[in-house]
Amino acid sequence: MALIVQKYGGTSMGSIDRIKNVAKRIKRWHDNGHQVVVVVSAMSGETNRLIDLAHQISKTPNPREYDQLVSTGEQVSIALLSMAIEELGIEARSFTGRQVAIRTDDAYNKARIQDIDETPIRSELDAGKVVVVAGFQGINAEGNVTTLGRGGSDTTGVALAAALNADECQIYTDVDGVYTTDPRVTSKARKLSKITFEEMLEMASLGSKVLQIRAVEFAGKYQVPLRVLSSFDDSLDGQFDDHFRQTVGTLITVDEGDSMEQPVISGIAFNRDEAKIVVRGVPDNPGVASAILTPISDANIEIDMILQNLSTKGTTDFSFTVNRTDFDKAMQILNDDVKGDINAQEVHGDSDVVKVSLVGVGMRSHAGVASRMFQVLAENNINIQMISTSEIKISVLIGEGHLEKAVKALHTAFGLDRTDGDSKVAGV
Amino acid sequence: MALIVQKYGGTSMGSIDRIKNVAKRIKRWHDNGHQVVVVVSAMSGETNRLIDLAHQISKTPNPREYDQLVSTGEQVSIALLSMAIEELGIEARSFTGRQVAIRTDDAYNKARIQDIDETPIRSELDAGKVVVVAGFQGINAEGNVTTLGRGGSDTTGVALAAALNADECQIYTDVDGVYTTDPRVTSKARKLSKITFEEMLEMASLGSKVLQIRAVEFAGKYQVPLRVLSSFDDSLDGQFDDHFRQTVGTLITVDEGDSMEQPVISGIAFNRDEAKIVVRGVPDNPGVASAILTPISDANIEIDMILQNLSTKGTTDFSFTVNRTDFDKAMQILNDDVKGDINAQEVHGDSDVVKVSLVGVGMRSHAGVASRMFQVLAENNINIQMISTSEIKISVLIGEGHLEKAVKALHTAFGLDRTDGDSKVAGV
Repeated sequence: MALIVQKYGGTSMGSIDRIKNVAKRIKRWHDNGHQVVVVVSAMSGETNRLIDLAHQISKTPNPREYDQLVSTGEQVSIALLSMAIEELGIEARSFTGRQVAIRTDDAYNKARIQDIDETPIRSELDAGKVVVVAGFQGINAEGNVTTLGRGGSDTTGVALAAALNADECQIYTDVDGVYTTDPRVTSKARKLSKITFEEMLEMASLGSKVLQIRAVEFAGKYQVPLRVLSSFDDSLDGQFDDHFRQTVGTLITVDEGDSMEQPVISGIAFNRDEAKIVVRGVPDNPGVASAILTPISDANIEIDMILQNLSTKGTTDFSFTVNRTDFDKAMQILNDDVKGDINAQEVHGDSDVVKVSLVGVGMRSHAGVASRMFQVLAENNINIQMISTSEIKISVLIGEGHLEKAVKALHTAFGLDRTDGDSKVAGV
Repeated sequence: MALIVQKYGGTSMGSIDRIKNVAKRIKRWHDNGHQVVVVVSAMSGETNRLIDLAHQISKTPNPREYDQLVSTGEQVSIALLSMAIEELGIEARSFTGRQVAIRTDDAYNKARIQDIDETPIRSELDAGKVVVVAGFQGINAEGNVTTLGRGGSDTTGVALAAALNADECQIYTDVDGVYTTDPRVTSKARKLSKITFEEMLEMASLGSKVLQIRAVEFAGKYQVPLRVLSSFDDSLDGQFDDHFRQTVGTLITVDEGDSMEQPVISGIAFNRDEAKIVVRGVPDNPGVASAILTPISDANIEIDMILQNLSTKGTTDFSFTVNRTDFDKAMQILNDDVKGDINAQEVHGDSDVVKVSLVGVGMRSHAGVASRMFQVLAENNINIQMISTSEIKISVLIGEGHLEKAVKALHTAFGLDRTDGDSKVAGV
């Protein structure tokens, strides 16, 4: 008998028929003797409906009242799902964030979980009930409702799994797992049966939308086994055996350090949201980087990659990337305020760029990943504009037109391609 | 400076524009130096939408989950109204039933308020804030959400006014007060500026839909001055002076005993929901009333008026009234199960009847109200089928076709007709 925390998103809860279907799935787990805690989001569209009501009243609604408002979406979901489970003859009990209680800090709209009292849930589970918990919400010390921000239901699921010491936390999504890369870019993308927390964090921060970064961080910190699996495939529901554990979805777990069997690279992520800015002909004085970047960060623009060329003839070129949505604003700040101040020759911008990243904990013990990567790109006549690295990741900035060619070539070169019968066809 | 509890129903909260309008009204009270606690219902249609979702899942949804579900409607309202008040530059703070806390018994769907902790509300009021409370909901001892049943928001308003010792509880409705009788029956109906709790209770139980009976009972028990006023007329908002108190809406208050100035009759209520059943030729034995009525009440059918004729030749006729919705069921029980058992000659039913009632605390000190009533009806050739009386009420059952004639004649005979300039035209 296992204790499983399952999280179903807004799409899975999107209609009464879908809610009934989720109830049936939960029944199968329950009937197989497992204890089940279910975390749910609001019915799809409901949170946006509520936010729209708030914005009809105020551009900047009071944050406490905003959370009081939007938290009702999940409360509706838990009540309806509990009713649907009871209708199948299984006792169920819903818990709001407050009823658990999930205690958070005071940061309305983006609160962080501080503490969970798992006692009331445990006692309902021991009484044979299914427990249904509202995702995305908690209470602060004064008893006010807080919300965890978008995607917070994943975090609720992981936090509950940690508090209950659950066997695993299952996140049901519209994809059937984490892939070596986006299957829309190469049909040879392969579903990973396993990936480490660190790799998943890099994949998520590099643009993979499967899981919220905060949920992965939380799972890594508390070492909660986290499985991403399909909300459409119910064929192995309730069978928490070796076959299930090794084949269904993708398990995100600790690095077991068995690098002999580990591939060097686990996946290739990419991010089309980058834009590059080059400040040319900057006098190479101390403090010039700060003079360029401080006005940018003062405008709440985040900077990703940074490169300063070697100085020639006393001047240098300074390049960095920002999110494309901030590109125009950053260019304006540099042209209007910075260029004259630092006596730069030119500010050049390019938003036709994309960042491609190799991710893998195996990289730690294998030299030569970077040189192999550059070689593959060179063979394909792809110019590298910028490079950044971390312990388990190498990223390059290339022209956007080269994206598909680069990903396919690297996917093959690093042995990620699926072979016959290797995996199901990507469900994206 | 007064402390006012205001209750706005679902129609007043029915759209964002209406919510903004309620916020403006509250601002006027606040700007005039009054402390304001606002109790609101769910936006019109919202509670029915939620109930419909529940019933798509189950014919008999789990009562706890049902309350968890429907209570979200009011939570949405308090958050939106608080935002709208803040948008006008006044600090506001919303409270769910739990946040107040409004403690109730365990009767989900029809819970009764046991205790209110007014401390948190008081401290927000003292800090200059407007307090917005969710009507219709509370929590039981285990911290589960309970609801008070339909119309429970009126009760929440009265209970808060009692707990806070408010100067008055204002119930904003789609009529501008309590009338001597339904203005749709006679254009001479007059708005009452004042009525006693006892009279209002009789009016409500006799079919006047202005206020929930439970709210009136509660107000009477705790002597909370209760004003019914128009949600459309905002001309005197915030002016809590003698003129307002004497003219706006209808104040429901304690009987001041000044019967010299009091009219004998305050109003004429009527109820079209009655149906009469006569069991004819019943042997006049002890226990025959019980033999007839016990099977009826066992079927959860409520009985209103009862009449047993004087016995002639050892048999008697036994008459009573039930709600029209129960008429067919009651007739079937009597014909199938009772008639043979008690050896009755015939069971006769008539659903074309209506109950007309004179209500007034002045009746206590005036003999002859009944005889004057019967005389007026006789002069109008209206046959009285049954009679029942209480200390402040006389009811007669008459043919439904005589309703308008009876009400108009009694209204004039008991001096209730409006005179020129007496009052505004009825706003129904």
